[in-house]
Amino acid sequence: MLVVMNKGATPAEVEAVVGAIVEKGYEARPIPGGERVAICVLHNEGPVDASKFSHMPGVKDTIPVTRPYKLVSRESQAWDTVIDVGGVRIGNGHLIVMAGPCAIESELQALTIARIVKKSGAQVFRGGAFKPRTSPYAFQGLGEEGLKILAKVREETGMPVVTEAIDHEVFDMVEEYADIIQIGARNMQNFSLLRRAGKARKPVLLKRGMAATIDEWLMAAEYLMEGGNYQVILCERGVRTFAHHSRNTLDLSAIPVVRQESHLPIIVDPSHAAGRRDQVIPLSRAAVAVGCHGLMVEVHHAPETALSDGPQSLYPAQFDDLVKQIGPIFGVYKMSTNGCRENRAACVRA
Amino acid sequence: MLVVMNKGATPAEVEAVVGAIVEKGYEARPIPGGERVAICVLHNEGPVDASKFSHMPGVKDTIPVTRPYKLVSRESQAWDTVIDVGGVRIGNGHLIVMAGPCAIESELQALTIARIVKKSGAQVFRGGAFKPRTSPYAFQGLGEEGLKILAKVREETGMPVVTEAIDHEVFDMVEEYADIIQIGARNMQNFSLLRRAGKARKPVLLKRGMAATIDEWLMAAEYLMEGGNYQVILCERGVRTFAHHSRNTLDLSAIPVVRQESHLPIIVDPSHAAGRRDQVIPLSRAAVAVGCHGLMVEVHHAPETALSDGPQSLYPAQFDDLVKQIGPIFGVYKMSTNGCRENRAACVRA
Amino acid sequence: MLVVMNKGATPAEVEAVVGAIVEKGYEARPIPGGERVAICVLHNEGPVDASKFSHMPGVKDTIPVTRPYKLVSRESQAWDTVIDVGGVRIGNGHLIVMAGPCAIESELQALTIARIVKKSGAQVFRGGAFKPRTSPYAFQGLGEEGLKILAKVREETGMPVVTEAIDHEVFDMVEEYADIIQIGARNMQNFSLLRRAGKARKPVLLKRGMAATIDEWLMAAEYLMEGGNYQVILCERGVRTFAHHSRNTLDLSAIPVVRQESHLPIIVDPSHAAGRRDQVIPLSRAAVAVGCHGLMVEVHHAPETALSDGPQSLYPAQFDDLVKQIGPIFGVYKMSTNGCRENRAACVRA
Amino acid sequence: MLVVMNKGATPAEVEAVVGAIVEKGYEARPIPGGERVAICVLHNEGPVDASKFSHMPGVKDTIPVTRPYKLVSRESQAWDTVIDVGGVRIGNGHLIVMAGPCAIESELQALTIARIVKKSGAQVFRGGAFKPRTSPYAFQGLGEEGLKILAKVREETGMPVVTEAIDHEVFDMVEEYADIIQIGARNMQNFSLLRRAGKARKPVLLKRGMAATIDEWLMAAEYLMEGGNYQVILCERGVRTFAHHSRNTLDLSAIPVVRQESHLPIIVDPSHAAGRRDQVIPLSRAAVAVGCHGLMVEVHHAPETALSDGPQSLYPAQFDDLVKQIGPIFGVYKMSTNGCRENRAACVRA
Repeated sequence: MLVVMNKGATPAEVEAVVGAIVEKGYEARPIPGGERVAICVLHNEGPVDASKFSHMPGVKDTIPVTRPYKLVSRESQAWDTVIDVGGVRIGNGHLIVMAGPCAIESELQALTIARIVKKSGAQVFRGGAFKPRTSPYAFQGLGEEGLKILAKVREETGMPVVTEAIDHEVFDMVEEYADIIQIGARNMQNFSLLRRAGKARKPVLLKRGMAATIDEWLMAAEYLMEGGNYQVILCERGVRTFAHHSRNTLDLSAIPVVRQESHLPIIVDPSHAAGRRDQVIPLSRAAVAVGCHGLMVEVHHAPETALSDGPQSLYPAQFDDLVKQIGPIFGVYKMSTNGCRENRAACVRA
Repeated sequence: MLVVMNKGATPAEVEAVVGAIVEKGYEARPIPGGERVAICVLHNEGPVDASKFSHMPGVKDTIPVTRPYKLVSRESQAWDTVIDVGGVRIGNGHLIVMAGPCAIESELQALTIARIVKKSGAQVFRGGAFKPRTSPYAFQGLGEEGLKILAKVREETGMPVVTEAIDHEVFDMVEEYADIIQIGARNMQNFSLLRRAGKARKPVLLKRGMAATIDEWLMAAEYLMEGGNYQVILCERGVRTFAHHSRNTLDLSAIPVVRQESHLPIIVDPSHAAGRRDQVIPLSRAAVAVGCHGLMVEVHHAPETALSDGPQSLYPAQFDDLVKQIGPIFGVYKMSTNGCRENRAACVRA
Repeated sequence: MLVVMNKGATPAEVEAVVGAIVEKGYEARPIPGGERVAICVLHNEGPVDASKFSHMPGVKDTIPVTRPYKLVSRESQAWDTVIDVGGVRIGNGHLIVMAGPCAIESELQALTIARIVKKSGAQVFRGGAFKPRTSPYAFQGLGEEGLKILAKVREETGMPVVTEAIDHEVFDMVEEYADIIQIGARNMQNFSLLRRAGKARKPVLLKRGMAATIDEWLMAAEYLMEGGNYQVILCERGVRTFAHHSRNTLDLSAIPVVRQESHLPIIVDPSHAAGRRDQVIPLSRAAVAVGCHGLMVEVHHAPETALSDGPQSLYPAQFDDLVKQIGPIFGVYKMSTNGCRENRAACVRA
Repeated sequence: MLVVMNKGATPAEVEAVVGAIVEKGYEARPIPGGERVAICVLHNEGPVDASKFSHMPGVKDTIPVTRPYKLVSRESQAWDTVIDVGGVRIGNGHLIVMAGPCAIESELQALTIARIVKKSGAQVFRGGAFKPRTSPYAFQGLGEEGLKILAKVREETGMPVVTEAIDHEVFDMVEEYADIIQIGARNMQNFSLLRRAGKARKPVLLKRGMAATIDEWLMAAEYLMEGGNYQVILCERGVRTFAHHSRNTLDLSAIPVVRQESHLPIIVDPSHAAGRRDQVIPLSRAAVAVGCHGLMVEVHHAPETALSDGPQSLYPAQFDDLVKQIGPIFGVYKMSTNGCRENRAACVRA
């Protein structure tokens, strides 16, 4: 950390800050500049709490230098994490497609859609049994009944299933049935849920919060890893901005940044980002082109009758188009990044 | 709801939408316009799910008309809710000041600060026993030990206490010790926690989420009321924007909007909004002037040693200034709104 | 437009609104709903000014139905506009690459970079002669000297050139030298400049403002077309959000929306969006995959010595990689959208 | 500036950065930390261009230390600037109220409103002669005819007048008629207009851009002062965020920050921030309470007939209420800040 002093800070004020730094067990190194003094904090393990010094007389600002996360960081693991879910591999060099309805509505609905998406090329089946809803009056999902249907889908199609654990209470149940446990955007900083998921023996899909910075998102992943669960998949699903032509603004620049900062696989959910069916295919192409490890897409055989999020669900023929389109784009991506000039992280991965 | 058809929608497409509306049990009334047809959905109780119609051929857009919330709405209760907490009244005509440290650190710390803030005029003591922290490596609060200290503070000073229940697991414990149970910004859409709080027999202080619209916030309050808990206090604490001179951007226009839409009391937390001590007093004055029902402020007798959020905690002398300043401003506010010309809601309240 | 009345609005209040609508020359059609009355405004040509009615007693809200723009709208022209600049075609079915330095620094610099980017496949040369700078103390560009260098680049390489006209004063000069005149993001709502550009005989590249909605952006384009200039190219360059891992958040969902709403070509500037070199190639791939008509990219033969925006300029070898990568992705895009199932607009274009 | 090296940066890489810094004429001081090396850049006059070093091998990040603005800074002038406009004083210790219609519509309209607002206590009359409008089809103002009406208002009422110069072309004309020249939010970074205003002999009211940081806003003011015009009044008018219950989100925390960073007077425009009449009085009270130097408010004697922005214009009786309410709040503010404990800047001002 760097402590920047005011222009007219007195030597006594500088001394006091140095003393406070030393007292915390760090080393302090003052840098007398042309206009003002800055003091470097050294020999700290991990980040320094700025609040210890920012209040002191003569201090203008404190500037952090070290990243706050550790286990998720590429500095702690240079190679890409690859997660194996029932033979399906997620991460470095693989492109995963997860697809299915927003909510499980019935066995017939789930199986119908599962067969459709599998035929088109999906490798993981998605579907909500517990739905977080803004309104207490809205459909909240089938609950355990939905989980049982998911198990049946896996049995019949062979596809692993991903579904959301919306709270601590249902976590055990979800962990029992699901192959991948989803933590939703609204729960990204539900630390109690993160601690529970850190103890799970199943991979966790961690969605980015609606207004989360990348640092906060990676810190949420750090909760999972710190708890012992190293099978973490990140999922970008759009952030809230002033723009309203899509439900959220899909932040694709997060993908190269996360891939540079972290070794964890990162996928994209274009359906929740867009909130509108007609943006899902273009955004899916873009997500694969930018370099994500996969997609999570909502598909429904009859969106007009869907119990939730019908307007953003693809028709089966559209999903088939989508899968056909992203394959060659992923091919271009893989070939193109072999040369390693894109950035250093890419070279590390090669 | 209004279903807007495309310019060139065919009569058959209009017919199909009308049919779908009728099939849902509503009445459909088509409005042939100059350029395009629009169809009104009538006789619905509560909001209509747009997804039923927005996908149909020829449909351009669907436009909701009814508000999604009911029990929190001023349409369902015209007068202001007033909540009594151990003799302290929160709501219409009263100005409440809640103050205390970010986190309870020790009995000595809590009692020292409690005596200071009580002397200056605080009516409710605040202090975190369980702290939601971005980093798993940061101080997480004293837990039940902290709650016991809060009980002792209440015993010694007579002030009711407010503290956060960060998850379902600790809710029972918090409900036992606290006079007001806080739901934090990160948990505003933790629906499981909201359902639990809806069953609590204590008032709930519901903070606005970092990127929550007012509709979403009121819907979260609707979860509490729908569960049976009518003692809900709303708390504005800033939203996340591109601006970085304060930690969050305090959205004071939310106060008149919420007071017009809802009968619930609404207070302001300037400390978490600003994240910097030097903005807290100005923002407190502004919050009272805009018409809130109270403040929640962080105060520490020695902020430089605070275990969390020291930089935003007021010194005791500053808090004393703050209380002295807001009193006369609240007087101006009360007098000024007696005339009722500000808006209709003010007249309802008179 | 739809005027929504309060729940308890009186018949007299409804009458008064109907009277006011009729007085403006429109037709009013009241829709008595279950809970409240709504009144449709019909037979208006273009949008109705909501402020005429929103103030009236008993009115809760006014809801616009018609889009505010006309000439830019796909409703007024179903096929894609294609612009020919010295034999280079921009729009439907073509992928244009504009490249060059942020600022023209010298003839040698400009020619060096021009030869490099042409060799890699750029079709248009970009370079600023007049630079809008946040600080009055920063390098402001070479001015007319820079324009002359651009003319020389065109002469030697055959590439058309695009450069920014930062104000009315220099517009004549820029129009004389440039093949495409750029209007920068900060000037998107400089209506005086837009009016001048509407009279220009050269194509205009209109960047999206930092916090502009798509409606505002298309309305700015409407200024150009209303003035008589139908050669308008839109350019997405990122919007300002809370996120700070890139300089701006590139909003790729804007591309399918603009392509559906408007017939104008739309390109993407990944360099200014990212502000960091290492995001430029991934975002370029994504922009082409999402369906834009081209890219505008900053390239410098020696970014470390660049007078402005060095950190976001690609090295020559990186630009060469970029062009190689986007070609096949554009191929996938073109092939994939032939099937027309993506959305209706795509079918119109086919 | 601080150049932070990668964890594994080699001594040769550090050496190269040091060499590059020295070559620019600065002094370089490397700080060997526990995990990584950082290099301080010293003896620079003003900010260092990070792009010179951020690209170099082994460099992780560059961190600026010095503020970019000079003349607007409180470091360059400790006392508050006070501007005298025809005997009306704006700045330290004075509370100015500017009021009038959005647009000048006729002599009768302007004089009617001017007499009304003067009687209630307004000291400066506002009214647009040139209106920047999102749509080319909307009313654009009366132009010079409007300026002549403003002159007549000044003559008859004695009030100085403020009006917007929307571009370079009309600047001379506006400067001739107006007492204060307004630069609108959309023009905050129209640098050509700022340079012209820097040469004006009249005070300039500079509105904050819709998505401008405080640094960018103060840099725009720096353009004015650098050009020789020291009579600058800043005006906060809300920023664009995801929130849509008000047209813009009024950022009142900007007031204490600007007052701490700069000596320039700062006022607030609650009318454009809210976009809705019913928020204007509450936000005005809040603005005065937070510590601004004045308000700019839209008032119309018959808002329902206004040619622009009717829904946000106050009725005369409301404006009268507003002025009555803010007076005592300003009294509380002045008294309260005499004690100087709020922050250091307040003490400087006393």
